[in-house]
This record gives sequence, C-alpha cells and structure tokens, in this order.
Amino acid sequence: MSLNTFGHLFRVTTWGESHGPALGATVDGCPPGVPVDEAALQHWLDRRKPGTSKYTTQRREADAVRILSGVFEGQTTGTPVQLMIENTDQRSKDYGDIAEKFRPGHADITYWQKYGIRDYRGGGRSSARETAARVAAGGLARAALSELAPGIEITGYMTQMGPHGITGDRDMDQVDQNPFWVPSAETAETWAGYLEELRKSGNSVGAIIEVVARGVPAGLGAPVYGKIDTDLAAAMMSINAVKGVEIGEGMAAAMLTGEDNADEIFMGNDGQPVYSSNHAGGILGGITTGQDIVVRFAVKPTSSILKPRQTITKSGQATEIVTRGRHDPCVGIRAVPVGEAMMACVILDHLLLHRGQIGGEVGTHRGRIG
Amino acid sequence: MSLNTFGHLFRVTTWGESHGPALGATVDGCPPGVPVDEAALQHWLDRRKPGTSKYTTQRREADAVRILSGVFEGQTTGTPVQLMIENTDQRSKDYGDIAEKFRPGHADITYWQKYGIRDYRGGGRSSARETAARVAAGGLARAALSELAPGIEITGYMTQMGPHGITGDRDMDQVDQNPFWVPSAETAETWAGYLEELRKSGNSVGAIIEVVARGVPAGLGAPVYGKIDTDLAAAMMSINAVKGVEIGEGMAAAMLTGEDNADEIFMGNDGQPVYSSNHAGGILGGITTGQDIVVRFAVKPTSSILKPRQTITKSGQATEIVTRGRHDPCVGIRAVPVGEAMMACVILDHLLLHRGQIGGEVGTHRGRIG
Amino acid sequence: MSLNTFGHLFRVTTWGESHGPALGATVDGCPPGVPVDEAALQHWLDRRKPGTSKYTTQRREADAVRILSGVFEGQTTGTPVQLMIENTDQRSKDYGDIAEKFRPGHADITYWQKYGIRDYRGGGRSSARETAARVAAGGLARAALSELAPGIEITGYMTQMGPHGITGDRDMDQVDQNPFWVPSAETAETWAGYLEELRKSGNSVGAIIEVVARGVPAGLGAPVYGKIDTDLAAAMMSINAVKGVEIGEGMAAAMLTGEDNADEIFMGNDGQPVYSSNHAGGILGGITTGQDIVVRFAVKPTSSILKPRQTITKSGQATEIVTRGRHDPCVGIRAVPVGEAMMACVILDHLLLHRGQIGGEVGTHRGRIG
Amino acid sequence: MSLNTFGHLFRVTTWGESHGPALGATVDGCPPGVPVDEAALQHWLDRRKPGTSKYTTQRREADAVRILSGVFEGQTTGTPVQLMIENTDQRSKDYGDIAEKFRPGHADITYWQKYGIRDYRGGGRSSARETAARVAAGGLARAALSELAPGIEITGYMTQMGPHGITGDRDMDQVDQNPFWVPSAETAETWAGYLEELRKSGNSVGAIIEVVARGVPAGLGAPVYGKIDTDLAAAMMSINAVKGVEIGEGMAAAMLTGEDNADEIFMGNDGQPVYSSNHAGGILGGITTGQDIVVRFAVKPTSSILKPRQTITKSGQATEIVTRGRHDPCVGIRAVPVGEAMMACVILDHLLLHRGQIGGEVGTHRGRIG
Repeated sequence: MSLNTFGHLFRVTTWGESHGPALGATVDGCPPGVPVDEAALQHWLDRRKPGTSKYTTQRREADAVRILSGVFEGQTTGTPVQLMIENTDQRSKDYGDIAEKFRPGHADITYWQKYGIRDYRGGGRSSARETAARVAAGGLARAALSELAPGIEITGYMTQMGPHGITGDRDMDQVDQNPFWVPSAETAETWAGYLEELRKSGNSVGAIIEVVARGVPAGLGAPVYGKIDTDLAAAMMSINAVKGVEIGEGMAAAMLTGEDNADEIFMGNDGQPVYSSNHAGGILGGITTGQDIVVRFAVKPTSSILKPRQTITKSGQATEIVTRGRHDPCVGIRAVPVGEAMMACVILDHLLLHRGQIGGEVGTHRGRIG
Repeated sequence: MSLNTFGHLFRVTTWGESHGPALGATVDGCPPGVPVDEAALQHWLDRRKPGTSKYTTQRREADAVRILSGVFEGQTTGTPVQLMIENTDQRSKDYGDIAEKFRPGHADITYWQKYGIRDYRGGGRSSARETAARVAAGGLARAALSELAPGIEITGYMTQMGPHGITGDRDMDQVDQNPFWVPSAETAETWAGYLEELRKSGNSVGAIIEVVARGVPAGLGAPVYGKIDTDLAAAMMSINAVKGVEIGEGMAAAMLTGEDNADEIFMGNDGQPVYSSNHAGGILGGITTGQDIVVRFAVKPTSSILKPRQTITKSGQATEIVTRGRHDPCVGIRAVPVGEAMMACVILDHLLLHRGQIGGEVGTHRGRIG
Repeated sequence: MSLNTFGHLFRVTTWGESHGPALGATVDGCPPGVPVDEAALQHWLDRRKPGTSKYTTQRREADAVRILSGVFEGQTTGTPVQLMIENTDQRSKDYGDIAEKFRPGHADITYWQKYGIRDYRGGGRSSARETAARVAAGGLARAALSELAPGIEITGYMTQMGPHGITGDRDMDQVDQNPFWVPSAETAETWAGYLEELRKSGNSVGAIIEVVARGVPAGLGAPVYGKIDTDLAAAMMSINAVKGVEIGEGMAAAMLTGEDNADEIFMGNDGQPVYSSNHAGGILGGITTGQDIVVRFAVKPTSSILKPRQTITKSGQATEIVTRGRHDPCVGIRAVPVGEAMMACVILDHLLLHRGQIGGEVGTHRGRIG
Repeated sequence: MSLNTFGHLFRVTTWGESHGPALGATVDGCPPGVPVDEAALQHWLDRRKPGTSKYTTQRREADAVRILSGVFEGQTTGTPVQLMIENTDQRSKDYGDIAEKFRPGHADITYWQKYGIRDYRGGGRSSARETAARVAAGGLARAALSELAPGIEITGYMTQMGPHGITGDRDMDQVDQNPFWVPSAETAETWAGYLEELRKSGNSVGAIIEVVARGVPAGLGAPVYGKIDTDLAAAMMSINAVKGVEIGEGMAAAMLTGEDNADEIFMGNDGQPVYSSNHAGGILGGITTGQDIVVRFAVKPTSSILKPRQTITKSGQATEIVTRGRHDPCVGIRAVPVGEAMMACVILDHLLLHRGQIGGEVGTHRGRIG
C-alpha cells in the first residue's frame, strides 16, 4: 500500500500542501554513512526553484530544505530522514474563485468528488509544489549513489516544447546554459521566442523531457512486477501533468521490425558486453544492461491559463474561469529536475534491492561472461 | 516490496516458467461472494491462447486454468485464489543453442548477469507465457467487477502495427472479427498481407494496443504515488516487450497548448458533470473523472527472429544466432487480452482502495456537485 | 517493506531522534472528513508527557504537536497528515560517556554494530521519546474512530509492577486517578511506596500493561498473516522495551484444557451472539468476535540505572557504566498511553481494510446469524 | 498489504483450504543459486506430518510437496518458488453438522460473520493444515540460510503441556527422541501419561513452545517497526491457536529490576562482545546481539473436543456440539516445526534486508568494536 509512498527499500513519502505551513519528504531506508547536509540537497532544489526566469512561476519561495532527522555529524544514520520545506510565500489572497469553481484540466473536480473536502489554496496537494519534496529526496538519493556507485551520472533535459523539437546537433554542455535545459543553444533561442509569445497571450504549452542515467551497472531490476522500467514508468507518471512515459525507443518501437530493433551484442575490450545500439534504453526483461538508461516523459500544458474556459461550480452552475495566479507557461521546464530526482530514487532503490536479493556490493553479479 | 506481485488490495502474484511443470497466479484480497468458476476464467484465456491463427506462435497449449483454492460452491470466499495452468506442450527438444547464446533484445543476458542461473527453456520466467497467469487473474478481476460495479466495460484493440495505423473509421464491432483485434475490417486485411510477408521473411514487428474502460465511476485513484494512472503505467510497462505507455493524449500532450488541451466542464442532464473532450484520458490528478479511461502501450517487435543476428556466448565468444522456435511475428497481438486484464486488475484494486479510504459502495463519493 | 512504517491502509511512519530538532509521524491513509485539531491530539500527548510525576523522567518537554499537512478547516482531507513535535529540552550537555560506552540492555551496541554510526544523544532513535509520535498518531486514529465507529472505547492500565500485581477488586474509575494508571487506589499506594524506594536506590523495574478495546464490531481481521492479533502482537512488540505480548488468556492458555478454554456461544437478547467467557480476548481465527479485545504486554525495566554495570567501550575496553541522566524508574508507566495508541491504530487500520475487502460501513458483515 | 503474505524481502504467501484440491506457498524473493529439491523440503514436512503418533490427528496425508517453479537444475533461480501440497485424504464425509453449527473457540463464527461464506470442510482456511505450507516455505528458508549463513541452527521444542513443565535438566539430545519434542526423557514420559488420559476423555490441552536460533550474526533487525522481535512476534502470533509470544525473559521481564535484567557486556577471546546473561533473548532495540535468539509462544488447547459444548447455529438456534473428527489432543505438538519454520523465514528475511540496507555479506557490519 503506497498512496503517498514511492520505492521498495528506499522509500520516499511526500506530504504537504501548496499553501500549508510546510511540505516535505519522509525518507526511510537510506543506507547509513552517506555524507550529506542541507547544502547538498539545496543545490538540487535551487535548480528547480520557481522564479528563476520569466518562463516559470513568479512565486518566490526560498524553498530552503531542513533535515530534521536521520543525519548525525554530517552522515546518514540509517534511520528515517525527514526533509522539510516551509512555505514562506503564502500570499493571503482571496481564493474564493477557485474555491467554488473547478479549473478544467485540474484535479479540483476529482479531489472534490472523491474526498468531499479539498485544500483549494494553490491546488493544495495536487500542486506542482509537491515536487519540491521529490527533488529534496532525489538529492539524498544522489548523495547515496555517490557513495555506493560513484560513476553514475543522471542528466535531464527537454527535447520538445509544443511543436518545436531540437534543431541541429545536441550539445550536452548547453543543458545548463539556458532556462529550458535544452541541449542546443540555437533551439533555446527559438523556444524562448515561442514561449514568450505564448506567455503574453496567456496560454501554455506541453513538453517532453528526457532523462538519461549513465554508468548504471548491469543487473539492476527484478522481474516481473519489480522491473526497473515498471518502476520508472510509475515514477514518471506520478509526476503532476505527465501523460506518457517511454523507455528507449518508446512508442516508436511499434514501428520497427525485429531486425531493426535488435541491439546486437559484442565483447568489448574491457571484457564486458557492448551493444551495437540502444533501442532498449538500457533495460532488457526489466533488468539493466549496463548501457545508458533512457526515459522520456510528456508533460501536458499547464491547465491554469488566462484564456477563459467553460466550467461549473460546486453547486453545479455553469460558469467561466480565468486563472490569474502565478503560473508557468510551460510547467515541463520545472519537471526536468523532478524527472532526474525520480530516476535517482529508482536506481538507488533497485541497487539496494539487488544487494538484498543477490548480495555483494554494487556491480557484483552472480553471472560472469567470458 | 513486490517483485512478482501487483496491486495494493487486490494483489496478484504470478509464478512459473515457460517450460516448468506449471505457472499461475496467487490472488489475494479478492472480495468474498463473487460468483466464478474455471469456465469463466477460461473464456479470457482462450482469447489469448497461442496457436489460434498463423500470426501467433504455433505452440499448442490447452492453457486450461484450475482454481485450487479460495472458491467454494461457486463463489469466492475472501481467501487467496490459486489459479494454476499446467504446461502441457513442453517439447523435449535440444535447447543447447539458447542455453549458451544470448538472444539480442531478450532478457537472456540480463537474467544471466543478475542471477548467474536461468531457466533458458523457452525464455523461462521472461517468456510471454507468464502473461497467461495475468489473463487468468484478470478474469477473476472482471468477475469481481461484474459483481461490484456492473456497468464497467473493458475493451482492448490494436491501433498500430509497424508502419500501419488504422485506415478509415473505427468500427468497434470488428474488434472480435479479426485476428488482430483491430476495429476496422479494411485495416485487418491490410495488416494480414503485411504480416504474412513479414512472417515469411522471418522478421517481426511492433504494435500499439489501446485499452479503454467505460463506466468507471469518478473518484477512483489516490494521489500522489497511488494515482490510478501511475498504477496503469506500471501495469502496462510490466508486460513483456512494452516500451511506452500513454494516458489520454499521451506523448502528444507535449504538442498541445493549454487552450487546446483543456477538457471544459458542463453539467449533464443527469446532474453529473460532462466534459467537452477527453484529452485527459479519464484521469485528472490521478483520480478518475467518470469519462472513459484510455490507455495505450507500445510493444516492441519479437526479438526471436529467423534473421541471423550477432551476439556472444556465455563464455564471451562472438557468434551468430537464429531463433528457430515457435514465435509470434507480432507479439503485440497476444498483448491485447493482457492489457485488458491489467486494466481490470487496476480498476478493481482502486475500487477496493476507494472503499477502504472513503467507505460506501462503488460510486459513492463524499463530494457532490449541484 | 516497513522499517519505520506501521499499518496497511492507515499507515504511520515515525521519524526523529531524541535530541534532534524534531520528531513526528507521517500518517498516510487517514479517511477524509475527520474533525481534528492540534488540541485534540495534544490531549493524548499530555497523558504521556514525561515530568508529570516523580516516577517518570524529569525531562520537561512541552511536547507540543503541530499539524503540518492533511488538515484543512478543521477536517482531514485524505492526504498525508504530518505531525511534528519539536524537541525543546535538548540540554547541551556532555554526552561523551555514552558516546563511547555501550549501556547494557540498551540498543547502543546493536545500533553501532549494524550502522557504524549512531546518534547517541539521549538514545537517538531508540529513545522512548519516539513513542510521542505514536501517541500523536494514535490521537488521530481515535479521532477517525470517533467518526467511523463511535462506540469504541480503548483503555490501558497497569496490572503488574515488579513483584506487585493488583490487590483487591479492579475499579476502572481509579485508572486516571493515580500516576500508574492502575485500577485500584489501594494498589496505587503500595506501588508508590515500592517505586519510591526503588528510585532512591537508583534501580528500575518492569511492568505489565493491559489494553482493552470495547465496542469493536465483529468481523475485523484478515487471516492468515493479516490477522488482527498478528498486527496487535507486532504493534505492541515494536514499543521500546516490550518483551512479551498476550491476547486473552495469553501464555496461560497453555495451562488450560479445551473444555475450560472454550467460550461457549449463545444468542443475546439483541439478536447478536454472546459468549459465556472471553478466554479468546475477543479474537477467533484472527477476526474480532465483538467481545472486548484484551491485549497485555510486558515492559522490561529501564536499562539506564544508577547502579554500576560492567560493559565495554567502542574500542573494546572493559569499563563500568552508571547512567546519570533523567530516566524513569518504571518506563512501563509511560507505555500505557502508547499501548492505547497502537490499539487505536490497529483497529482503525483493520476497519479500513474491512471496508476495502468487504464493503459497506462499519459493522456491516456479509454473514448474518439468525 | 499482506493479508496472506509474510516477510519483507523473502515473501511467503500461503494459500489453500484444508479440504480443497491443494494448498501451498508462493515464495518470492528467494536468492538465486540455493541448492534445493523436493526431498530437502519433504524432510521438514515429515517432521510436522500428522498421524505420526497417537497424540496427533490420525488424518493420514502424504503431505508430499512439489516444486512447481523457481528451481532449475537443482538450484533456485531468483524467481518465485511455488510449493504445492495436494490434499489426498479428503474423506467424502457428511460435514452437515459443522456447516450449520459454530464450534466454540473456532474461527467458524467469525469467518461466517465477516465473509458470509466459508469453506467449513475441515476448517477450510483456518485449519492447522495451512501450516504445512509454512513448513515447506521454512524448509526453503533453511536451505537459503545454509548457503548464506552456514552456522545458524534453529531448534524448537516444547517446554510446557498443560500444568506440566519440564522436570529435571534439559537434554537437547532428547528433543528428537520423543513425540513431544521435549528436551527431557523423564518429562516425555510424564506428558505421555497425562496426554493419553486427556485424549481418552475427549479433552485437549495447551502448550508452550520455545524456538532458539543459534549462530545468528549481530546486526539483523531494523527499528522501529521492522524490528526483528516485532516480526517474530507477528510470525508466531499468526500461527493458529497462538495466544502469547515472548522474547527472552518475556512476560517475566515485568518482575525484574533493572539491575537483575541487565546483560552485562565483556570482550570475548575472539574479539567479539560477550554477555553475562541473555535476558534480552538475543535482541536489543530490535537488532540481534549475536547471542541466541529465544522465542516462546503459547498454543491454546484444540477447540474441537468430544466434550459437548453449548453453541448456536447459523440461523441463531441454541444447540450443543461435539466435534468427532480427527483431532489433536495437543495441537501444540505440531506447532513445533511451524515455529521453527517461521523463525527461519524471519531470520532469512532480515538477513536479506540487512544486505540491502547495509551491504556486504552476512556478518558484515559497519561498526566494529575494538
């Protein structure tokens, strides 16, 4: 049972509402002896922080994370780590409109129907603010991975914004150089123009994010319902506004023949298998191959827009709604660090599971080739 | 922890290998008093059965399911239901080739690396045969749904085979009339020609399957990690060879603007909300809206093909492999009933969860509109 | 997987160390619409609060609980409820002694061996302070029970302190009238004298606590590993210093014959079954009978005593230890409200499970008698 | 959620009814590479087998266990292991009496109330026959322990039968030499006489079983709800008819002072800590100390007796019942191998958990002493 918990052994429970006193993540199962402090986690939160460019919500939160438990003298102790982020920018404004009206495309109506009560302030539990807790937990997962499996690198970036894909060659050095985390300076410029126009018109747009993990050892994953791709699909789909998840070729795998799709296998110079290609996205039968793990997910456009839309009130009256709050024209931008965080959590979790079932340290398999 | 278990309250654990004595599903948490017998489950297994057309593997299994526990005098008792399918067509053949060589695109190499031992016969645990157990469990889920939420209909069909989508209008009556479960007689013919040629050439191809659930009450789902779309993504991604999962607009949501993507809300004549469209695929904030739940997933082409591919042996020698066994040119065909089964399990599971957290019978919410 | 989580549907994860900034409980799965506020929870914490008599630790904590999430306008919303208690009385003292030495009977040595790091300040995670979080969560469970199953009453009391049992008749009205929660004014006096002497001598003593739940409907529990007695045994054994758990007759059931042990069944005037006795402690086959649920558990004597004991240091040197801190001569006293809290959590959890699997509201069964 | 599942990483789901076609255990999470076959499991089942003496039920079941999955060429593969025991001695007799009447002390009435349907034949799911599946799973756990932690020895024996404890010194060599698994030839004789008389009179009696695990490394367990004593308490309490569980001193810990109860610590010659005593039963703070783990549990007397008892029928009529079936005068006897099996499962499970969270092989800690 895991309504608000994610993971098997590295278990992350997020809690908190957008405009409550605080939100956070209760992380259970983190190995002991991992060096970590608030600054290390803050680093990742700052990447996600709203208000960093005109393309993300202008809400200005310090988003300062505090470690309340589970860390002693700079190291994790193996007990639960409580990560809390206080909500400092809760404007005392009139929420009356969204208290009564359901925003189309939002969880307003379904929360109401299910629970008969909802904290409508800023979207409450369904706000994208919840993902700050994920990023904090992901920071902890990264710290643990640094200790347990030093070579792993996790990088997220955008590959699509509305009708615009990436033009020209990918230049991964560009990812951190533009507000869209897009691996192309040229594309960043095109997107900037497109998004600025969209923002001015009060509209929003969707996006595709790709997250790649390099250096993950072969052998992680556990068929058939504990497959690592199963968990990655769940992890990404659980992020607000995500409507699709792909591994490797993804949906396009449907268009390929078996001949084209096969990643042929050879022996590398280091005595490890190498593959001619990576259609599989680094996962076969739910278990990692040692190749890059490649996951993509699509984020739908923000539903809170300035364009008037038809809707109803709690009392069933037809009405029109315009959402004037502070919102992102492309919420996908802020989903990049969230996707990275989920990837980090899933990999760490499977690494611990692997140790549990197979034994030995990271990269230890039972089956050797050659 | 759920390596081979799926679900929160309706828990399905599948077990068994392709060429072992038997395989099956241990189902825990089925409500008592559900009328069910072996014939009712067999109905769904027969839909999935291999050997029904030349487009699926010629392995001829009776695939007869036995209920070993949890059913008494024609009704479930609330105790675990053991569903067993004996493997009757285990040809005593020489498996030497695949015992030593890793088939590209298969779990052969990853199972070996992880476990250091694998039942290579017919793919062992990673065989698509495992999905027979899912279909049996799905049959039980359907029986329970019939009792608890009579109006729900779950239908799966193919929408893409390799380069070919559906041509012309969809005619749902055609779904059961052709070997591809495609809602178009015309398309079925095109696909038949295409696949026959592919099969003769020893090649294979991928597919996209869409599964729709109608009549699901609003309010099912549990944010933020127990979202019903999270569970559907996990359910579908856990099926063999699946590489992508979409809800509603899916990956295409990235291309839409907020204005286009919003499903506007109105009051219906029956006092229930109605929506102008269903971009959301029936799920908002992880909770059902009462609209059709629409899920799509892509199945990669069968990796076992007659075309020779480069690979390596367990001892690290370069070699070539040709898989001569009985295999499906388009394994996506057999995935249709499996997708339906997973949908049935997820809906039932969330219906039980909803009863647990919210109380009342199906369709009971706490929040009323109007 | 539940290292620090308890419960199936009403899931309580406690976190925090004795001398960290805060501790608390993350409660997931609480039904929506439960009226609750901080004062309601504080009521139960105040019962447990240390420093209320000379028989419990003189540490003076406000133990003020804050609700950080999941409650809106005085009601639960169905989202996670974060309950935080700040540690205000963390004396900046020299912990050097217990940092290096392992206290006999304490978790000091095992935490060190397992984790290689431990927050030794005040016992860290293994401190009885952790139980404050349980009591807060138990308060929430009680609030939910009041709403869902109004007639349930849960009462804990001590029945044994060291060599002293209860003398004379039990008078339940006395439970709240003495520092030992013992249902006998006369016994309270005897115990007071005994404990005072023990305290002065720097020694400590064990205790037995009995917790009774009245008004629990028949039918709660889920065989064979989700039995309500299984969960009660786990719940009580997880409390610090508990070494034994009994249901009904408990260990003494071994001494009885089948003839003596049978609780004969009759029809009551209200058309419900009544029993001639309650050897079973209200549970048959892991399911409640509707009789009182009776659980007892034994708490060992506090290990932190003024009497010098032999032990070793981290570096393996033989040494002697005297624990001078603020400690309880009979920690069992403070375990009374903790036992009540665990009982409340288990009953609520099984009530939700029952609704999930069986449907209907509390007290609804599928099988009727008569 | 674990209605019929036990364990975190080594997960045992039992299924099946007393008089259905079969029963068994679905074991998920067993490490790969464990040598095991049906004979190895049968060894433990034969210990438990009914009909071996006049003191246990005369039902004669072959209780032959079959391994249906997860084992290949004599070793576990890391996939689910299905253990099935067919029910061969299902007498086609008239069950009419117990179909309508509720046996006092039995789950008959609670199953009926909860589920509204029950397989009354032989007690259905609540029959002690379910424990055969536990013994089979325990056999697998023992096989895995032999491989992973060779030195562990698990021994169960009876210490009390009705009014009779063990007289004289314990002689562990006697355990396998008498039908009661009592470590004393003299006591066995006394008990034989006592039980024979009881049996003749159609009565039954309770018992206390002690299970000891030797050679378990320090460091297993995971506070605060995944404590190994928490899991042991749950494991033992989940066995049919168990009403109490004790660790180390157990309930008697209440009578001790802190001075008497402390297990003082010294350095052993091998550089490992040694303890002056073992009041703690090998567990401190939920984590093993390396000392013997000592667990006791009480089994109530069989409720099915020849003595007539008052009860009611499903239709609420007062009636009398005499249970004439094949039953054990002291069902505690057969609980001995069951207790051992549960101990083996819990230890293996925590060993895997420890590897997962801490890493390294068995006996590897992070904290060294000296």
